[in-house]
This record gives sequence, C-alpha cells and structure tokens, in this order.
Amino acid sequence: MTASAFDHPFLSGLFGDDEISAYLSADADIRAMLSFEAALAKAEGAHGLIPQRAASRIAEACRGFTADIAGLKVATAADGVVVPDLVTQLRRSVGGEAAQYVHFGATSQDAIDTSLMIRLKAIVFLFSGRLDAIVRALEALDRQFGQNSLMGHTRMQAAIPIAVSDRLWSWRAPLEGYHGRLGVQTFPIQFGGAAGTLDRLGGKAADIRASLAQELGLTDEPQWQNQRAPIADLANLFSLITGSLGKMGQDIALLAQAGGEIELAGGGRSSAMVHKQNPVGAETLVAFSRFNAAQLSAIHQALVHEQERSGAAWTLEWLVLPQMVMATAGALRLARELTGNILRLGGS
Amino acid sequence: MTASAFDHPFLSGLFGDDEISAYLSADADIRAMLSFEAALAKAEGAHGLIPQRAASRIAEACRGFTADIAGLKVATAADGVVVPDLVTQLRRSVGGEAAQYVHFGATSQDAIDTSLMIRLKAIVFLFSGRLDAIVRALEALDRQFGQNSLMGHTRMQAAIPIAVSDRLWSWRAPLEGYHGRLGVQTFPIQFGGAAGTLDRLGGKAADIRASLAQELGLTDEPQWQNQRAPIADLANLFSLITGSLGKMGQDIALLAQAGGEIELAGGGRSSAMVHKQNPVGAETLVAFSRFNAAQLSAIHQALVHEQERSGAAWTLEWLVLPQMVMATAGALRLARELTGNILRLGGS
Amino acid sequence: MTASAFDHPFLSGLFGDDEISAYLSADADIRAMLSFEAALAKAEGAHGLIPQRAASRIAEACRGFTADIAGLKVATAADGVVVPDLVTQLRRSVGGEAAQYVHFGATSQDAIDTSLMIRLKAIVFLFSGRLDAIVRALEALDRQFGQNSLMGHTRMQAAIPIAVSDRLWSWRAPLEGYHGRLGVQTFPIQFGGAAGTLDRLGGKAADIRASLAQELGLTDEPQWQNQRAPIADLANLFSLITGSLGKMGQDIALLAQAGGEIELAGGGRSSAMVHKQNPVGAETLVAFSRFNAAQLSAIHQALVHEQERSGAAWTLEWLVLPQMVMATAGALRLARELTGNILRLGGS
Amino acid sequence: MTASAFDHPFLSGLFGDDEISAYLSADADIRAMLSFEAALAKAEGAHGLIPQRAASRIAEACRGFTADIAGLKVATAADGVVVPDLVTQLRRSVGGEAAQYVHFGATSQDAIDTSLMIRLKAIVFLFSGRLDAIVRALEALDRQFGQNSLMGHTRMQAAIPIAVSDRLWSWRAPLEGYHGRLGVQTFPIQFGGAAGTLDRLGGKAADIRASLAQELGLTDEPQWQNQRAPIADLANLFSLITGSLGKMGQDIALLAQAGGEIELAGGGRSSAMVHKQNPVGAETLVAFSRFNAAQLSAIHQALVHEQERSGAAWTLEWLVLPQMVMATAGALRLARELTGNILRLGGS
Repeated sequence: MTASAFDHPFLSGLFGDDEISAYLSADADIRAMLSFEAALAKAEGAHGLIPQRAASRIAEACRGFTADIAGLKVATAADGVVVPDLVTQLRRSVGGEAAQYVHFGATSQDAIDTSLMIRLKAIVFLFSGRLDAIVRALEALDRQFGQNSLMGHTRMQAAIPIAVSDRLWSWRAPLEGYHGRLGVQTFPIQFGGAAGTLDRLGGKAADIRASLAQELGLTDEPQWQNQRAPIADLANLFSLITGSLGKMGQDIALLAQAGGEIELAGGGRSSAMVHKQNPVGAETLVAFSRFNAAQLSAIHQALVHEQERSGAAWTLEWLVLPQMVMATAGALRLARELTGNILRLGGS
Repeated sequence: MTASAFDHPFLSGLFGDDEISAYLSADADIRAMLSFEAALAKAEGAHGLIPQRAASRIAEACRGFTADIAGLKVATAADGVVVPDLVTQLRRSVGGEAAQYVHFGATSQDAIDTSLMIRLKAIVFLFSGRLDAIVRALEALDRQFGQNSLMGHTRMQAAIPIAVSDRLWSWRAPLEGYHGRLGVQTFPIQFGGAAGTLDRLGGKAADIRASLAQELGLTDEPQWQNQRAPIADLANLFSLITGSLGKMGQDIALLAQAGGEIELAGGGRSSAMVHKQNPVGAETLVAFSRFNAAQLSAIHQALVHEQERSGAAWTLEWLVLPQMVMATAGALRLARELTGNILRLGGS
Repeated sequence: MTASAFDHPFLSGLFGDDEISAYLSADADIRAMLSFEAALAKAEGAHGLIPQRAASRIAEACRGFTADIAGLKVATAADGVVVPDLVTQLRRSVGGEAAQYVHFGATSQDAIDTSLMIRLKAIVFLFSGRLDAIVRALEALDRQFGQNSLMGHTRMQAAIPIAVSDRLWSWRAPLEGYHGRLGVQTFPIQFGGAAGTLDRLGGKAADIRASLAQELGLTDEPQWQNQRAPIADLANLFSLITGSLGKMGQDIALLAQAGGEIELAGGGRSSAMVHKQNPVGAETLVAFSRFNAAQLSAIHQALVHEQERSGAAWTLEWLVLPQMVMATAGALRLARELTGNILRLGGS
Repeated sequence: MTASAFDHPFLSGLFGDDEISAYLSADADIRAMLSFEAALAKAEGAHGLIPQRAASRIAEACRGFTADIAGLKVATAADGVVVPDLVTQLRRSVGGEAAQYVHFGATSQDAIDTSLMIRLKAIVFLFSGRLDAIVRALEALDRQFGQNSLMGHTRMQAAIPIAVSDRLWSWRAPLEGYHGRLGVQTFPIQFGGAAGTLDRLGGKAADIRASLAQELGLTDEPQWQNQRAPIADLANLFSLITGSLGKMGQDIALLAQAGGEIELAGGGRSSAMVHKQNPVGAETLVAFSRFNAAQLSAIHQALVHEQERSGAAWTLEWLVLPQMVMATAGALRLARELTGNILRLGGS
C-alpha cells in the first residue's frame, strides 16, 4: 500500500530505483543515525566530555542495536521526530551508567540532518557515476552519428540543418557541468545541540564537532539547522539534472514523432493500438523534470525556517527531498537506457 | 524501503493514513480496473457489441482474477502503463473465444483514469466525513469556550480583543464550504478508446458509455483524457482544505508559543529538552498546506496535455496526485486530533 | 521602467492587454476604494450609525477627490497599505465634522479587498465574453474543417486518424465549462473592521454590510479577510483557462512543426532566417499556462493567513494575482487571434 | 497602468527599487543590445569577417541610435521578439553598404540573452554591495546587543536562552555565503547564430566569440541558448537570498509579536487602530521569500527548452526573471532598513 509511484508494486518498474531507494529506507536512516550516535560518543570520549568506557559501550551497543520499529512509529506520531524514542531505545540497550551519555549534548535535528547528509553523500556519488555513464554514451553516439545531418528547429519550426553532433553537444554539455559540480559537493555535519549553541559542550564544542565530522566523513561546519541553503542548493542541482534530461527527453519524443531522423529500440506497447511504439522513457524524463521543478519551490518555501528550528519547514523538507532524489535517480537511469536505445540519429 | 513519508515505516506514524492509503494501493487500483473491464464487457454485451456469453465469462474471470504483480512491474517499465500487460493476463485468464472481447474498444487511459475516479469518489466521501467531524469539534469548542476573550492579532501584532468564537468561526467557515463542495462533487467516467473517439463502438458508443458509467456509479460524460480540469479542480479543493487547516495549525502554534490563551494536550517530546511540549500536529498542518500548494502547480503544469493523450503530462499526475490525497488525509486526521487536544481557549 | 512584461514598452505588444490592465491600474483601484468609502458612508447614514449629512458630504467628496499619489507612495512604504494615508487625504478633502465619519468602523483590508472584488467582477465579465468569442471561433472552424481528417496522436506518436472536429472539441469543451463557471461566479464584499468583528457597528453590522454589498453590486457575505478561498478559487479558474489554452497552443505548435495538417497566417519573423514563420501566439499560450501554474502555488501558499489578518500572506497575493489576471487576459486575446489565423486544419 | 507591484504608482513605495529597475527598463535593454551589435561588428571587423569600415559605421550608428519604441511594440507582437525590428531600424540608421553587416551571423537570442547577462552582471554587483551592507549592519547589532540574552525557540516553543549573538549569526552566516557566491559569479556571452552553430562565421567563430565576450566584459563560453542552467542557478541564488532574508523577517515579526525582546522603529500605521505599529518590512520580507520560491519553479520548468531554441520556455523566463530580480532587490533594501530600525534586541 503506497502513495508513491517510486515505491509502488508495479509503477516502480518505470519510476523506481532500488539502488538509490535503499539509502532512503528507514533502515538506512536508522543505521546512519546510529553511526552518528556512536561517533558522537567516541568524539566526546576522546575529548574527555564523557567517560571513555561509556563511549566504548555506546559504540558497541550501536553496532548490535535493532530498533523496535513499531515503537518508533508510535513515538514519531507523538513527538514529530523519531529521535527521542530511538535514543530511549538505544539507552535501554546500552544500559548501566553509560546509558545517560547516549546523545549527550545533541538534539533530534543533529541526528536526523547528519544522517541525511551521510546518505546524500553516498547518493551523490552514485549520481555522479550515472551522469558520467550518460556523458560517455552521448560521446559514443557522437562518434557514431555526429557527422549526420539533423534539421535544426527553433521555436518548434524547421530552421537550418545542423550536425547531429551539435544537438548531442547541447544535451551533453550541461551534464558535464553537473558532473563536475557533484564531484566537488560538500556534505556538512549538523551539530548544534538543543538550540544550536552546543550549550552542554562548553569550550570543547568546536573540537568535538571537528572530530565528529571527521569520523563520519562529513565537512566540519557550524550548525545549519535553520539555514537550509545546503539542502536548497542540492535540490537545485537535482532539478537542474532532471531539467536538462527532460530537455533531452522532449527532444527525443519530438524526433520520434516526426520520424525519419531517429530510430529507437524499446518502445512501449499500447493497449489499443498494436502498431504503436511509445517513447515512454523520453516522456518520463519530461515528467520527472516538471515534477522536480515544482518540488523545488517547496524546498525554497522551507527556507523560511523560523527561530532556532522550525518544525513546519523542516517537516516540509521530509515530504519533498526524498521524492526529488528518487525523480533524479529515475531520470538518470532512464536517460542511460534511452541513450542505449538510440539505434540511429540524423540522416546523411 | 520507501521514498515517501506517507508510507514510511516510522514517519507514517505522523504522516500516514491507513484508511485512505488503502485506496491508493496497487491492489485497490487493480480491483477498480477489473471492475471497469467487467462493467465494460457487461455494457458491450447488453448493447450487442460483444456476445453476451463473452461478457459473462469476462465478468466471471474478473471476479476471480489475481494479477501477476511481478509481471505487471516489468511490463510497466516497458510500456509506461500497466494496462497492456494487465489485459494480456486477464485475457489469458478468460481464455477461449471470450478473451478477444476483453477491453474491447477501450484504451489504457480509460481503465486507469476510471479506476482513479472510482477510488477518488470513495476517498472524497471519507474526506467529507472527516471535515464534518472537525466542524462539529470546532462547534463543540465554540459552545465551551466561545464566550472567552482572545487577543485579536493583525499583521502579527496584538490588535483588539475578540471572542474565541470569532477565531473559531474563521477556522470553521471555510471547512463548511469545502464540506458542501465535496458533497456535490461529481466523478466522471473516462471512456474514449484509442484516440478518444470510441472509434470501435460505432453508433452504440453513447449508450454503452452511459451504461458503463451507471454500472460503476460514475457520471456519464464525454472523455476528458486530454482535458484535465476534473483532476485540477479536485487538486485545488484538496489544497484549499490543507491550506485552511494549515492556517488553523499556524494559529494554534502561535497561540502555543505565546502561551496563556491556549492549553493543549498531547505535545511532542524533545530529545534535548525534557520540559518542552511541541505542538507537532499544528506544525504538521502547516507543512501539509505548503506541500499541497507546491504540488498544485505540478497538477496545473499537467494541463498542457498535448494532442489526444500526453504520456508526460499524465505521468506527472501520477507522481503528484496520490501525494496530495495523502497530505489531505493526514491533515484531516491531525486536525481532528488537534481540536480534541484543545483543553482551553482564551481567557475570561 | 518596468519589471513586468505585461506593462513593458515593447514586450507589452505581445504580452499586454490595455483593456484589462486598466482595471489593475492605481487609478482604478483608488476609484474603487472611493466607491467603497462612499457606499460605506451611505449605508452607515441610512442605518443611523453616522449622520446622514456626513454621509452625503463624504459621498460628494469621494466624487470630486483626486489623490496625492506621491504622498500615497511614501505612506505605503511605511504602512504596508495605502489606506491609512488615503483615508487621511480623503478626510482632509471632506473637512469639518463629517471628516471623522470617513472609513468609520472599517479597516484597510475592507477597502482593498472590496476594491479588488469590484474590479475582478468587471474583469471576469470581460473574460467571459472573450471565452465566448473563442468558443464561437472554434465552432466556426468546426463548420469549415470539422469533417477533415487529422492524424490523432497519443504519447506524441501517430495513433489513428480522427476528425478535425474531434480535436477542435477537445479544445472547445473545457472552455465552454469555464465560460459557464465565470457566469455564475460571485464576488463577495469584504467588510470586517479592525479585527473582523465589525466591533464598532454593534447590532447594525449585518444590515449595514448587506446595504453596502448591494450598493456595490457585490455578494453579501461575512468577512473572508483571513479565509482566502475566494481568491484561490478564482486563481484556480484563471490557471485552468490558461492551461487549456496552453494545451491548444501546444497542439497548434506541434501541428505547425509537422506541417501539412495546418495552414497558419501571421507567423513571426526570425532575425536570422528569412524563410521562417514562427507560431509565436501558440508558443506564448504555452508560456502563459506554465506561468499561471507556478503562480497558483504562491496563491495557495498565501492561504496560511495567520490570525485575524496576515501582512505577509496578503502582500504575497498582491505580487501574484494581478500577474495571473494579465496572463489570462493575454492568453484569451492571443487564443482569439490564433483561431482567426487558422486558414486550414486537417486534410481530406 | 500596471499589473506589477514593483512598478506601481503607490505600491512601488514598498515593493519598488528605482536603482535596480533601471536595469530592467526597455531603455537599458535596448542600450545593451546596441552594445552587443556594436561589439559584434567590431569583433567581426577585427577578424576580417566584415569590412572594418562597416564595423566602424555600425558602432557609430549604435551610439547615436534612438529606437522607435512604438514600432518595436507592434513588431514584438508579431515576431515574439524585438530583435528583427530593432535590427531593421538599426540597419536603416546605419544605411549604405554597411547596413547589411548589422547583426551579421547572429540571431535574436544572441542579442537578448547577452543584453540580459550584461545587465545581470551590473545588478549582481549592486546586490553584492547591499548584502555586504546588511552583513555589516548585523555585525554592528552584534557588537551592540550580542551579549544580551534571548529566549531560543524550537518548533515555535520556548527552548533555552541563547545569546542575541547566536540568533544574529544565524541571520548573517547565510548572507556571507551568498555574498561570496555573488562575487565569483560569471556572466557568459550568448552567441550561437541561427541554430547555435555560428554557421556563418566559419573557422573564425571561436575567435570572434572570444573577442565579443571580452569587449562586453562577459565570460567566453559556448552558446547556452537551450541549456538554461546559467539562468536557473542565478534564480536559485536570488531565491536563497530572499529565503534567508524571509527567515530573518519572520523571526523579527515573531519577536515583535511577543514583545519584550525587541524594540523596533518605523512601524506601519493601521487605518483602524491608532495604537498599532505593524512590522511591515519584516512581513514583506516573508512575502518576497515565498514569491521567489514559487517563481523558481517556473524558471526550472523553463529548463525543458525543446530543440535548438524554445519560444515557450524562453518567453516564460521573461515573465518571471525580472520579477525575481525585483523581489530580491526589494528584500535587500528592506532588510537593510529593518536592521537599521532595530533599536534593541534581547534583554540582560
């Protein structure tokens, strides 16, 4: 039972992406939050804020911990965030004296936003590889068909002939740019404590945050709990990717409609017309681009993040960002398939 | 593994809604599409377009049919729609001479959009009941606290005292309006065949469509396959509902922040501060309203539905509308809870 | 110097609309606000709330009043609304004892929202006429070319031949629906006083509001100052209109691209290619539809109208709604032109 | 007569910005397009593509040229772009043999997009200065009130006390980031000719484009006519700026509502309540942020820029981007004023 085409029993055949959705699962989120709690204890132990023994015990417990998901669900309904109950469960698992040092000086947002960044880092790495594969596929098409002639169109009218290479370049160039940007993207730790001031860490706050970031492979930066540009910039980049792939999809659908200048494998069947070959992947690229363009406005609405932390604006991100990730994943997957299905472009 | 907070193992505690999500499940969709296929065969049999015996056989097969979901998923990836493979599976199940009469004269969109309307009709009926319950709860609060005094605020500044009754009325009045609108909402059959012209039904097209609509409890209207106002109007109404509930949520969060004029039960815990009581439900109402407001723009982008049927625009609806339904469901559920959690409003 | 294509010295040739923009001018707004103030005084005089003599004096002054626009601009910068200074200027013009009865019991929002409704009523009347003209033009095309054959397209691929009449019907049917809806649209008075309770009118509030509404040709309804469904519903209808016209524009651009099935007069020139005929009007219809679809989300964001009156949400409407009106006006104008430029549709 | 609050006779007092709107005027656009045409002729002359004498004559004519605006308006209505008629007018002004070399090898989009970049470069420079002034004002507030105590709020509830410095930092830090980004922003020349291939420039295309870019102070990059990331990234940055300023505005409005922790000068008057001081600037910042967040989705919709050049997508940018610039300008102006109006923050 699902409201999302990305996870749907049969729609996910077209829209889903098992590789990426794994990072958006509850399980992956909990594991990343546990790695945050373990690394936090380790850093606080190393800097003498909590006993080393407690830190070891917490790290050990995090490794072996299995969450009571049903309990987390009930608690999230009441608390609006999963962390209070997760910490309670984890403390129970840690037991003894060490239990009190779990999550010490941290707040829900630290665990949740850091978990998000850990997983976005992995996702962006995969996206980067997919973009690269598409770029290479377009280069291969260029080598094969680049010298062919294509009717250039402006304002949806035939203009002058161009080379297939020219059209391919306009598809490829933006993707190369995004590939470069994904490669230098940073993923900041979120660590601020109750109200963003790391009030319980005293003079050791900066050092502990640096150790924590290093342990988790994230960038050490001051808290950004109510300053959401890191999220909005990633969302912008995701929507740029789907937008440029949507442009490619639209172009391919238009080529397929006109006929003659493209030969495509793998078209979809119609339930009413046996003769049709629908350019399903190309159309879906357009749909993903328009989807992400709309979602981006929700992410930017969430920039109005009142006071030290907004429940409403933060929650809005949860409803939107995973969907944008999935639309981007789906677009990258379909674009790769689609480039592979181009049997011929242009004419001589 | 899910990208959607509405179906998420623990986030669904806050955002999910089992009653409504059942109607958005693959299973409910398939059952509704089968009821379309059965009713279509019945109507075509009654009007002599297909043999009565075939119609009976198809109806019988639809009742006992179990889809091969894995097969549907693979096929949807290729075809962009589930129907071609569903029809193939159903024909196999029908067998014999009758098999060829399955889905006769219909197209994928007829099955999918009609299934959507069947389920939206049920959903809107439930929404109507929920709205009514909120209205009654607000009336009860009015009876209890209506005469209390509340500081009126304009432009976020204290203005002049008003009665609690005045504020409650501004929450209730729009909901009463939406309740009335849900009650008169119509749900049209979609039936157009390959290109919207019911080309294979000849002179019996209008009669068959009327019978089909009657059988399915839908309104008999000409095809709207590329004229999506019925979808956009429903989406507008959903977003109006979440918008007005978001206004109520924002007001309650502001009352809770100011303290003094409201007493709320059921606040959420903080993982960092034991003393806090977070108005989680109120904030989530705001998040839902901003979510739907953004989604509505995607639905309206999908009005540009090129030619007889657009793959891209139609697909975009699938990514967005179920999420809007779930956000509306969640908002109605939370608003009902929230009104029940108000222990006191205003002062004497 | 203008940021808006609708008012731009040369872009307005394509995007502007003198007939409609007149209703959005500062002058029209002030005149409508003065008619509100005059009618308010008249109603309050008739019901004995203010002296009849004062009411007459106010009405007289409103007729002859010329606003100091430079002063209004300076004051709006400070007050966020024009009304305080407009009322001050008007009181000065009224003079004497009567001056104190200007704007009695009203607030800024009453004047501004009522002025908006007065003007939207006129605008919607004009839109209705334009829609009707487009419908008739499409009917004329149907009579002329309806029996011609057109290749039906689904999912951007040739499907089966349809009649030109079928395609024309899919353009016309939604417009007929919107025409009907515009015809029954109501335009409510906004009258609530300082905090929405008409606190200074006592027991005569309802009678005065009814008289005021009647005088201004608006519907008598309770205040809707923080319940913005009337605005959001109109915005939805405007975006439906541009969406359906955008669909028609997209179809025409695709027909023009394919060539053969359409002959269009009045194409635009290219600065680089003498041979081109660009379907500028058709493309601009698509642009308007996407523009309004995005604006609609801003209008729905403004439903979260906190407390008795939100400065932020209300102001957001001012930035968006006039643009939506102009996009709708432009789309209606261009669609009418475009239908007139169709010299042939389909083939035999 | 105007549909835009940014240019409105009295609303522009609050929303307008004379300094920035000058760059969006028709006059500034024409001057920038003329500088493009002059620089193009110069570069083509220097590289021997057109006679040096013609280049000189064109440059001279561009300096003295006054456009017939009424003619441009009529032509834009027909052509969808102003350039064909502008070039015709300019050729007439150049006269003689040289006339044919005006706009040689270029197309409308080259002139329009390059003009846009020339002006955005100037605008971004001014924005950068304004951001810097706000950052300094916030630093000054920090020096004055940073040590004061402020009640930290999370999820709209009192959490723990923080220093005023902490809150000010959360306002300032993102602005410093944006300031840095504006400082390294590049502005690419757009130069592609009829279909993006500079087909009429032969082997000299790259050199001429480099000279042209240098002459105009823009970055030399291949054409981006149908790859709109440069526009979308700027729009993203504008919306980040208004989003972060909207967060500051929301915080200030909430502080003003609570009273006690802020003292603000310059509040707006109410037409109904003499005692009120409305935080108009703060609310308007929120409105601008929500406005730009919605517009950004339209800019991203315009990424689906079909084929070599899309009329519809490009036109959509014209309707949206100037408004985003103005909203950003207004937000920067109001934020600077607002920081100056803070007489006290926090308590001791």
